[in-house]
Amino acid sequence: MDNSPARGTRDLLPDAVATRDRVLGLIQEIYRRFGYQRIETPALERIERLTGGQGGENEKLLFRVLRRGLDEQLPAGPLADLVDLGLRYDLTVPLTRFYSQYRAELPQPFRSFQFGPVWRAERPQKGRYRQFYQCDIDLLGEPSVLAEAELIEATTAALAAVGLTGTTVRLSDRRFLAALAGAAGVPAEARAGFFVTVDKLDKIGWEGVSAELVAARGLPVEVVASARDKIGSLTDLPADKVADVLAEVVPTLPEEVAQDLATTARSLAELPEVRWSFDPTLVRGMGYYTGQIFEISHPGSAGSIAGGGRYDELVGRSLGTEVPACGFSIGFERIVDLVTPAPPAEQLAVLFEAGVPVPTALAVARRLRAERGAVVSTVRRSGKFPAQLARLEGWGFTGFVSVKAEQDLTELPDVRQLRGDQEAQ
Amino acid sequence: MDNSPARGTRDLLPDAVATRDRVLGLIQEIYRRFGYQRIETPALERIERLTGGQGGENEKLLFRVLRRGLDEQLPAGPLADLVDLGLRYDLTVPLTRFYSQYRAELPQPFRSFQFGPVWRAERPQKGRYRQFYQCDIDLLGEPSVLAEAELIEATTAALAAVGLTGTTVRLSDRRFLAALAGAAGVPAEARAGFFVTVDKLDKIGWEGVSAELVAARGLPVEVVASARDKIGSLTDLPADKVADVLAEVVPTLPEEVAQDLATTARSLAELPEVRWSFDPTLVRGMGYYTGQIFEISHPGSAGSIAGGGRYDELVGRSLGTEVPACGFSIGFERIVDLVTPAPPAEQLAVLFEAGVPVPTALAVARRLRAERGAVVSTVRRSGKFPAQLARLEGWGFTGFVSVKAEQDLTELPDVRQLRGDQEAQ
Repeated sequence: MDNSPARGTRDLLPDAVATRDRVLGLIQEIYRRFGYQRIETPALERIERLTGGQGGENEKLLFRVLRRGLDEQLPAGPLADLVDLGLRYDLTVPLTRFYSQYRAELPQPFRSFQFGPVWRAERPQKGRYRQFYQCDIDLLGEPSVLAEAELIEATTAALAAVGLTGTTVRLSDRRFLAALAGAAGVPAEARAGFFVTVDKLDKIGWEGVSAELVAARGLPVEVVASARDKIGSLTDLPADKVADVLAEVVPTLPEEVAQDLATTARSLAELPEVRWSFDPTLVRGMGYYTGQIFEISHPGSAGSIAGGGRYDELVGRSLGTEVPACGFSIGFERIVDLVTPAPPAEQLAVLFEAGVPVPTALAVARRLRAERGAVVSTVRRSGKFPAQLARLEGWGFTGFVSVKAEQDLTELPDVRQLRGDQEAQ
Repeated sequence: MDNSPARGTRDLLPDAVATRDRVLGLIQEIYRRFGYQRIETPALERIERLTGGQGGENEKLLFRVLRRGLDEQLPAGPLADLVDLGLRYDLTVPLTRFYSQYRAELPQPFRSFQFGPVWRAERPQKGRYRQFYQCDIDLLGEPSVLAEAELIEATTAALAAVGLTGTTVRLSDRRFLAALAGAAGVPAEARAGFFVTVDKLDKIGWEGVSAELVAARGLPVEVVASARDKIGSLTDLPADKVADVLAEVVPTLPEEVAQDLATTARSLAELPEVRWSFDPTLVRGMGYYTGQIFEISHPGSAGSIAGGGRYDELVGRSLGTEVPACGFSIGFERIVDLVTPAPPAEQLAVLFEAGVPVPTALAVARRLRAERGAVVSTVRRSGKFPAQLARLEGWGFTGFVSVKAEQDLTELPDVRQLRGDQEAQ
C-alpha cells in the first residue's frame, strides 16, 4: 500500500513540527505585543468568493470541492454545476470577507494576525508544496502611513525574535512606479509589461531588462534609457533625502506620495537593528496593491522572506464601502528553513523490566516529571540493553532511569546521562 | 455580497482564538512532558485512503476534491473518475498512514500528538460544524496496558491543567463486552445490535433498552434479563476487586482481559485527583477498537469530553504488519466551551493627535512595550474623545497614553487606566 502523502503534499515529522511551533510562537508573541489579534477562517470558502478575480493568478490553482449529494453517475454538463466550495489559496481573500462580516464587532482600526494552511495546485517541485502555511498581519481601517511603518517594524521585530539577522527591508510604492513610468515616457498601456520586466532586474541585470523592454515590450530605446537613468539616480537614498530626490527625479509624483515614503523611511531609520533601502525596481506580483509595497530579504534566501503593501480597494469589493488596508506576510515555509534548531530539552526514559507492575513504572515517571520538570516517557526494557540505549539517544533522549522488579522505590533511582555514559551501565 | 462563512463552517473571532490557543497550549505542554511529539499530516489525502472502510460512518461525510486539469464541460460518467483527493474526516486514518511510512525513523514505541482540523459534511446544526478540530494522542507499538494507563493519566492531567475539574473516567473493554454478551446468551450475529442498544442506556434507561432489545433486536426476554443482571452486578467495582468480580460474573472472560482491566483500574486509583469507574455499558462507536475503551465525562457536558481505546489491527492494514496501538482523543470543541476565559493582559493605546509625526507615535509605543512588557497599539486620537475611550474599553484596552503635538517626550507620558477613570481626562 502506498503510504506516502498525496502528490505535492508532505507530512511533518516531530522535529519539523517542533521547529515550526517555536518559530510561530516567537512571531506570535511579537505581533501580540503590537496589538495584533489572531483570527481564523475556515479552509473552505464558497466557490464564487475564490473565483471573483481577487486572487489573481492563484485562482487558476484552485482545488474545487464537489457538491454533496450528487449521484454516483453524473450527467454530462458544465463542471461549475458540480462544485460549490473551494480550498482557500491565500489568507487575504478570507480576511476581506471576515472583516466585512464582523466589522461592527472589531476594534477600529483592526489589527489582524493569521496563521494557517492554504492550498494551491502548483506543479510539484522541490521546496514547493500544494499545502503550505501563510503568516499574515494586516491593519485594516488605518489610512495613514502609520500602517506601513508599524507593519514593517513589527515584522522586522518578529524576524529578529526568530534569530534571523542581516535582513534588509526594501521599500517602494505603486503610485511612484506609475509616475516613474510616465516620466520616462512609457505609454499607459505598456506599463504593466514594463513593470513585469523591471521586476526581473535582480535575475537578468540591466542588460537583460533593457533588451526585453525594447524587443518584447516594444519600448523605444530612449524611453528605456530614461527609465534606467531615473532608477539609477534613486538608489541608496538616505531617509532625510527621500522626499526631495523623488520630487526632483520624478516631478509628476504627487507630493503626498513622496512625503509618505519619506515618513516610512524615517520610521525605519529610527530602528537601530534594521537595514532598509528605497528600491525603485521593487514591483511585487499581486494586482491589488494601491500604495506602498515592501519586501524583506535575507542573505540565506534567494527570494524575499516577507512581502506586503497597501491594498485600499480590496475590502470595498466585499463590504461595498472602501476601507484602507495594509498587510505584511512572512514567508513562513522559507524562514523555518533558515532558523537554527532549539537546543534539546531534558528527555528521560523510565526503563522498566518485565516484572515491574505498570502502576509502579508510571508512578516513577510521574515523580520524575514533578521533581525535575523533565519530559519523561515510560519504555519497556529490552534484552539488548546497550543497543536500546543507543537507539534512545538517537531518538533524542538525554538520560534514563532503570526500574527493576522488586526495586525499592522509596527514593527515586538515579538519572543516568546517555551521552558517552553507556559503558558505565 | 454574502460575507458569512460557507454553510456549516464558522469564523473564529479574536477572543475565541485566544481561548483556543490557551487551551491548546496547556494540553500540549502536558502531553509534551509525557513524551508525546506533535506531528502533522496534510488536510488532503488520496481518495482511496479515505474510502477504504477505516473511517466507518465518517466515510459517508467525505468532502471530495475534483481532479485537476478537467475540461469545463464534463462528459457523463462515474463520479469517481472526477475525484482523486478528499479532506480528512479524522486524524486516525492519516496517523496510520504516517506511522506506516516513517516507522523506521520514529522512536519505538512512538508517542504521537496531533491537533488539527477535520472536515465532515454533517447536516448543519447548533454546535456542530463541518470543519472542527481534533486533539489526539496515540501510543503506537506498545502491546501492554501501559499504553491505556498512560494515555488516560496524560489526558486527565491535560484536562486538569485546562481547569476542568469533576471529570470521571469510564472504562470498559471490547473483549469483555463480547464475553458478557456470550455469557448472557446473545447469539454472535446479534451482538453488534445488542451493543448499539445498550449504548443508549444513559439516554433511555433500562426500560427503554430492554424493550428495544426484545422488540427491535429479537432477543428472548430471559437473555435480556441475564444481561441486565450481569451488568448490574458490575457497577461500582473497587480497583482491587475488578479482576475477581469480572471472573465470577463472566466466567468465559479470558483471564488476561480481566487482569489488564484490573491493572488500568489500579493505575487510575493511584491518581488522587481522578475519579473513575468500570462501566459495563460503555460501547463507543468506531468499529476498529479491539481491547480496552474509555471515555471521560464532565458535569458541564451531556456527551463525553474525551474518548479512546485500543485498536491493534488498524495500522496493520497500511503497514502489512500488525502494530499494537492505543489512542485517546479530547473533544476540543466541547472543552473550549467549558473553560473559563483568561484574565485580560495589560493592553494600552498610544493615542496621538494629528500633528504628531508617525515616527514619534511609534517610538512611544516601542518604549512602552520595552518598559512595561504590555500589549501596545498606536491609535489616532478622534475628535470625540470620551466616546473613543469608551470604545477602547469595550475592545479590551485597559489603559492609554496621550501624545499631543509638540509634546516633550524625554519622559514617557503617564499611563491612564481606562476603567472608571475617563472623567479625569
